[in-house]
Amino acid sequence: MVGQQFITFLQDHPWFDVTWLGASDRSVGKTFREATSWRLSGAMPANVRNIVVSECKPDGKAPRLMFSSMDASVATEIEQAFAKAGHTIVSNSRNHRMDADVPLLVPEVNAEHLKLLTEQRKQRGWKGQIATNPNCSTIVMVMALGPLKQFGIKRVIVTTMQAISGAGYPGVASMDINANVVPYIGNEEEKMESETQKILGDFAGSRVEPLAAKVSAACNRVPVVDGHMVAVSVELEKKVTAAELIGAMRGFHGIPQQKGLPSAPPCPVIYMEEADRPQPRRDVERENGMAVFVGRLRKCPVLDYKFIALGHNTVRGAAGAAVLNAELMQAEGWLNY
Amino acid sequence: MVGQQFITFLQDHPWFDVTWLGASDRSVGKTFREATSWRLSGAMPANVRNIVVSECKPDGKAPRLMFSSMDASVATEIEQAFAKAGHTIVSNSRNHRMDADVPLLVPEVNAEHLKLLTEQRKQRGWKGQIATNPNCSTIVMVMALGPLKQFGIKRVIVTTMQAISGAGYPGVASMDINANVVPYIGNEEEKMESETQKILGDFAGSRVEPLAAKVSAACNRVPVVDGHMVAVSVELEKKVTAAELIGAMRGFHGIPQQKGLPSAPPCPVIYMEEADRPQPRRDVERENGMAVFVGRLRKCPVLDYKFIALGHNTVRGAAGAAVLNAELMQAEGWLNY
Amino acid sequence: MVGQQFITFLQDHPWFDVTWLGASDRSVGKTFREATSWRLSGAMPANVRNIVVSECKPDGKAPRLMFSSMDASVATEIEQAFAKAGHTIVSNSRNHRMDADVPLLVPEVNAEHLKLLTEQRKQRGWKGQIATNPNCSTIVMVMALGPLKQFGIKRVIVTTMQAISGAGYPGVASMDINANVVPYIGNEEEKMESETQKILGDFAGSRVEPLAAKVSAACNRVPVVDGHMVAVSVELEKKVTAAELIGAMRGFHGIPQQKGLPSAPPCPVIYMEEADRPQPRRDVERENGMAVFVGRLRKCPVLDYKFIALGHNTVRGAAGAAVLNAELMQAEGWLNY
Amino acid sequence: MVGQQFITFLQDHPWFDVTWLGASDRSVGKTFREATSWRLSGAMPANVRNIVVSECKPDGKAPRLMFSSMDASVATEIEQAFAKAGHTIVSNSRNHRMDADVPLLVPEVNAEHLKLLTEQRKQRGWKGQIATNPNCSTIVMVMALGPLKQFGIKRVIVTTMQAISGAGYPGVASMDINANVVPYIGNEEEKMESETQKILGDFAGSRVEPLAAKVSAACNRVPVVDGHMVAVSVELEKKVTAAELIGAMRGFHGIPQQKGLPSAPPCPVIYMEEADRPQPRRDVERENGMAVFVGRLRKCPVLDYKFIALGHNTVRGAAGAAVLNAELMQAEGWLNY
Repeated sequence: MVGQQFITFLQDHPWFDVTWLGASDRSVGKTFREATSWRLSGAMPANVRNIVVSECKPDGKAPRLMFSSMDASVATEIEQAFAKAGHTIVSNSRNHRMDADVPLLVPEVNAEHLKLLTEQRKQRGWKGQIATNPNCSTIVMVMALGPLKQFGIKRVIVTTMQAISGAGYPGVASMDINANVVPYIGNEEEKMESETQKILGDFAGSRVEPLAAKVSAACNRVPVVDGHMVAVSVELEKKVTAAELIGAMRGFHGIPQQKGLPSAPPCPVIYMEEADRPQPRRDVERENGMAVFVGRLRKCPVLDYKFIALGHNTVRGAAGAAVLNAELMQAEGWLNY
Repeated sequence: MVGQQFITFLQDHPWFDVTWLGASDRSVGKTFREATSWRLSGAMPANVRNIVVSECKPDGKAPRLMFSSMDASVATEIEQAFAKAGHTIVSNSRNHRMDADVPLLVPEVNAEHLKLLTEQRKQRGWKGQIATNPNCSTIVMVMALGPLKQFGIKRVIVTTMQAISGAGYPGVASMDINANVVPYIGNEEEKMESETQKILGDFAGSRVEPLAAKVSAACNRVPVVDGHMVAVSVELEKKVTAAELIGAMRGFHGIPQQKGLPSAPPCPVIYMEEADRPQPRRDVERENGMAVFVGRLRKCPVLDYKFIALGHNTVRGAAGAAVLNAELMQAEGWLNY
Repeated sequence: MVGQQFITFLQDHPWFDVTWLGASDRSVGKTFREATSWRLSGAMPANVRNIVVSECKPDGKAPRLMFSSMDASVATEIEQAFAKAGHTIVSNSRNHRMDADVPLLVPEVNAEHLKLLTEQRKQRGWKGQIATNPNCSTIVMVMALGPLKQFGIKRVIVTTMQAISGAGYPGVASMDINANVVPYIGNEEEKMESETQKILGDFAGSRVEPLAAKVSAACNRVPVVDGHMVAVSVELEKKVTAAELIGAMRGFHGIPQQKGLPSAPPCPVIYMEEADRPQPRRDVERENGMAVFVGRLRKCPVLDYKFIALGHNTVRGAAGAAVLNAELMQAEGWLNY
Repeated sequence: MVGQQFITFLQDHPWFDVTWLGASDRSVGKTFREATSWRLSGAMPANVRNIVVSECKPDGKAPRLMFSSMDASVATEIEQAFAKAGHTIVSNSRNHRMDADVPLLVPEVNAEHLKLLTEQRKQRGWKGQIATNPNCSTIVMVMALGPLKQFGIKRVIVTTMQAISGAGYPGVASMDINANVVPYIGNEEEKMESETQKILGDFAGSRVEPLAAKVSAACNRVPVVDGHMVAVSVELEKKVTAAELIGAMRGFHGIPQQKGLPSAPPCPVIYMEEADRPQPRRDVERENGMAVFVGRLRKCPVLDYKFIALGHNTVRGAAGAAVLNAELMQAEGWLNY
C-alpha cells in the first residue's frame, strides 16, 4: 500500500522520476502491472505499468535516491546493503528509526537532525546513507506539538483513533473492524512514546539529545479509511494562553515552507475554529494530504491544554513524509556526495 | 430510543410491569403502536402495543414508580410535578443529576447516596422523590474507577469513543459519521468531569462531598452502533501493582450483587486478558449489557496506570441503569413511603 | 447538500459565475456563510461566503440562468414563477421532470429533447423555461443503457445499492444505516421506471414518445458515502455479443463530447475489465464525478445480458448533471432568447 | 468461522454433544483453546475449550455423526474417507453439493431428497453417507421461493447484498469493503443458479430432476456484519395475487415444524409488513437466526412479482442449516444404519 502511495505521490513530481522498482523474488522480472493489484483509488498510473520489477540488491542499476517501504523483517539488511553501496535510502520502514546515527525526520520540526548523516557515514563507513520518517501516528502528533516546543513540553497523554489504511493490505480484517473499535495496535504505543522524544530532541554535536518529556499513548483502530486522529493533553513549562498556542500553530513553518519544497504544504498546521472539526473523512484529503489539522484546543483540567489533531496516515504519515524528506535532503545539499 | 430500551428491558421483569406510558401531546390518546416506530432490533414487545399513551401530568392514574427519559427541555417541570404528587421518578434525564439533594446513582458504587432522598423530600416538601443515573459515558468510566477508589484517585484523563445510539433517534446523521470520527459531543465532557466527582464522592451527613480528583475528558463519536469505549489514564495516591488493580476490579461488587437484584450482573466489572479486548461489537451484548468490560491495564508513563473500558450505553448507560436504580430503591426500602 | 454541490461544481467554471443565491425566508438577508453549515469535504469556497441570500422571488435582480435544487414541496411554484418572468431554470428538483413539455435531459443521450422547450414556452406563455435532470439513480442506469438503445431495449430489471448522500442532509439516520441495508427508498423505484422510459424515448414532432421498454427497479440504501451502484439485467431486440455491447459503451459519446463542453467527461461511459470493479469508494471520484463506470458485462440466463454500473449521485446524478445541461443549452443556443 | 458457529449452535443442543474436533495438522494435539482464536461475539464456550484437536482421519475414535466445514481444497478426500468408514458427514462444504447422489437439503423444502442417500451408499459402497446444505446466499432465496414452488417458478432474477461474515476469517479486507460495495463474489453466482435448480427439483425414483426454471444471480458484498439480503424478481406459471403469495409464505412449513425439530423455527418464512424491512442489522438475530424474513412483495413490471428476503448467512446459511439437516436425518431414521 505504501509502495503504491509512493508511486501516486511521485507522479508528476518536478524533481524525481520513478525509474526503478524493486520487490521480493516473487515479483522480479514481471512488469509492475503483472506483479501487483492496484489497491488505491482510481487506476494504476501509466508511468509505472511497464517498469520491470528488479531484485532488491545493489547491482549498479538502481538509482542513487531510493524510497523504501519494506516489511520490517527484511528492511534492515536490504536498506543497509544499498546504503553501503552508495545509495541514499529514504525509508518509511521502522527498522532504523531509533538508531542513534539515523535521522528521524519531520522536516518542519527537526531538519537539523540531518547532520546525523555525517556521523552515520563516518561510523558505518558507508558511501550512501539512510534517513527515516516516523510512524504514521507519531508524525500527526509531532506536527501539532512542534509549534509548542518553544513553551517547554513536559508531559503528553495521547489517545489515537487510527484508520484502517495504516495497517496496509489486506491489513485489518473487516470482521474485526466493521462497526467496531479495536483498542490495540501492536507496538504502536511504544513507537509513539519513543519516537516523539527523539524527533523533538535537539541536535547536540554528533548526536540527538531526546526531549525529556514523558509521553503516554493509547492506540485504537476505528472504521475510518484514511486519517489518524489523536486526542492530546499536554503539560507545558511556560504559562501560555490558548490564543498563544493557536497562534504558534498557525504561524508554524520550517525549511520546507521557506524553500518552497514541492511537497510542502503552505501551512503545515491548520487550526480549525469549528466546534466539531477536524474530521478524517471531511478533512484528510485537503492540502494534498500534507498538512496536519488541529481543533478544539482548550484547557485540560489535569495537564494544561488538550486538543485534537488529524493527519493523512499514508501521505503525511508515510509516502508524502518520505518524499518531503528527500526534497529537504536535496535542497540542503545532502544528495551531493 | 431510551424509552424503547426501557420497554425492552422491563419485558418479563420479575418485580415491575409496564402499565402506563406517557409522552408528548402529539401522541396522547394513541396506542403505543400507533404513536411510535419501533427502532430497536426485532419487533415491538406485545405487552405495550395496545397501551394508550397518557399525558405527562399527575392525574392520579400514573403508577407510583415511574421511569423517565424525557428531553432535557421538558424534564425539569414534568419530573418535579410527578415527584411533588407522590411519585418516585427514576430518571435518565440530565436535568436533576447535579442537584445537591438528588442522588446520582451507580448502585455498585454509591448506594449510600440514596440517603439524599430524605433531605430532598424534607427540603422540597415533596410526597415523592427523584433519583437519577449518570450520563452514558460517565457510567462506563465510573464503573471501572469504582474498584480503584480505595487506592485514592487523584487525577483522571479519559478519551471516549462513543456509539451512535448514544445520540438517540434520528440522532447522528449518517453523512456525519459514516467512515468518520466526530471529535465533539455537546456538553459531554463537562458531564463526565462533574458527574464523576459527585458519584465517587462520599455521603457526609446530609450531603455528598465530591471526590477531590481532577478529571479531564475528550469525547468523540465513532461509527459503532452500541457501546461506549473509554481510554483512561489514572493517578492514584497509593502505590499499587497492576495485579492488585485487576484483582480489585474482578472482586468488585456491591449491594446489587449481595442482594441479587434482578438486573444486577454477577460481576459488574469483567477484566479481559486478551490483548485487543474489550471491543464494542463483540462484547457489548454480554452479561445482558449490564457489566462493564475492562482490558489492557498497564503502566502509564505520565500518570500511574491506563486501561480501556467498555459499557453498553443504552443499557448500563441508560435504561438498565435506571431499572437497577429502582431495584436498589425497592430492595433498600425507599419505595415504601 | 445539492446546493453546496452546485457551488463546489461551479467554482472556477469557465462560463458561469455564482452571483446570486436564494433560499427560504429563514436565511434571507444573511450571508451564505452565516446562513449555512458547510457539509461537504474541505472548506466553503471563498467566492460564495459573503453573497447575501435572496428571497426566491423574481424581483429583477436574479440572473437569467438559475440552478434549482429546491425541496419538492416548494419547487413547482417558485420555479414556474421564475420561468414565467424570463429566467431559465435548470432544475434538479423532481417536480417538472415528467411534464410532457419539459425536457428530462441526459446530454449524451437525448439532447434532442431540448426541442420540447419551444413547445413549453408556447403552451405556457413563459418568457423563460425549465429544463430538468433525472433522479440520481435513474441517470446512472440511463448513461449505461444509452449506448445499448441502438440494439433495441425491451426489458430491464435493476437493483440499486445507493449511497447515503443521495438523501441529503441530515438525510439517513446513522442508526438506520450503520452496518445495515435499508431495502426501501420512497418513490425511487417509480422514478427509475418512468423516467427511464422518457429519457430513452424519441422526440417526435412536439413531444417525446417514451421508450416502450418495461423497467422494474428495486432500490436499496447501503452504507456508502457517495456513488450509486446499479445491477442491471437487460433484454435486447437484436442479437449482439458482449464484445459489441462493451464496444458500444466505450465508443459512446454525444454533443457534450463533440463540442467539448466544460463539464463533459471525455468518455462518458468507462468500461472496467477488473473482475470486481467498479466500486463506489474507489471509483466514484474519478473523471471529476461525471463519467459512469460499468463492469462485469456478462450473459444473463433470464434476460440477455447483465452488468454493474456506478455513478456519482451528487455530481453526475445532481449538480454536475444540471451544470452539463446548462452548458448544453448554452452551446446549442437555448439561452439566447 | 463456520466451525466456531457450529460450536456455538451446538451448545446446549438437546440431541447432539460436541465430543470431538478435527482440524489441520498444525492444530492436532492442542486443546481447542490453544489451537484457535475465538472470533465470534462473547467468549469461547466452556464445553469445547479443553477438547484436544484430532487428525482428520477415520481412526475409530471420531463420532458417528460429524459436521464438516472444511476448506474446499481438502474437503472431498477427507469427507469421503469418513463416509466410507461409516460416518455420517453433514457438510457445509461445497464439494459434494452438486453430486447427483448427494442430497442438497433445505429441510422445509426438499426433505424427500434424503432418499438419494440409499442410492449414494449403494453406488459408492460406503458404510456411511454425506449430506450437504446449500451455499449461504442460495438458501436465503430458496427458503423464500419454497412456498412459491406450487405456483410454478419459471424465471428468477436475483441481486444479492451479502454480509462480510460470509467470507470467513480473515475474509474480506477492511480496505476493500469499508464504506464500499464489491460487486463480485467468486463462484457465488454460479452456485446460486445451479443449486437453486437442484434444491427445488423433484425426487424421481433414484435421482433428483432439477427444476426447469431459469435463474440469474448478481452477487455483491456490502459492509454488513451478518445477514444476506436478496432482491428477487420471479415469474410464475400460475396467475396468483400478492396476497396469495404472502399467504403461502406465512403458511409455509415442513417436516422440521411438523416434528418440532430442536432447531426448527416455528415459522420458517416470516413476512414483514413494514415498508422498509427486513433489514440485516435489525432482523438477522431474530428467531435464533433460523428463519428467513421477507418483505416488500409487489408487482414486477418485467416478471411477475418482486420481493426482498433476508437470512442469517452463518446460521441458517451454514452451521444452523447443517444442524437442522442432522436433526431431520435423525428424526427420519437416516442415522440408524
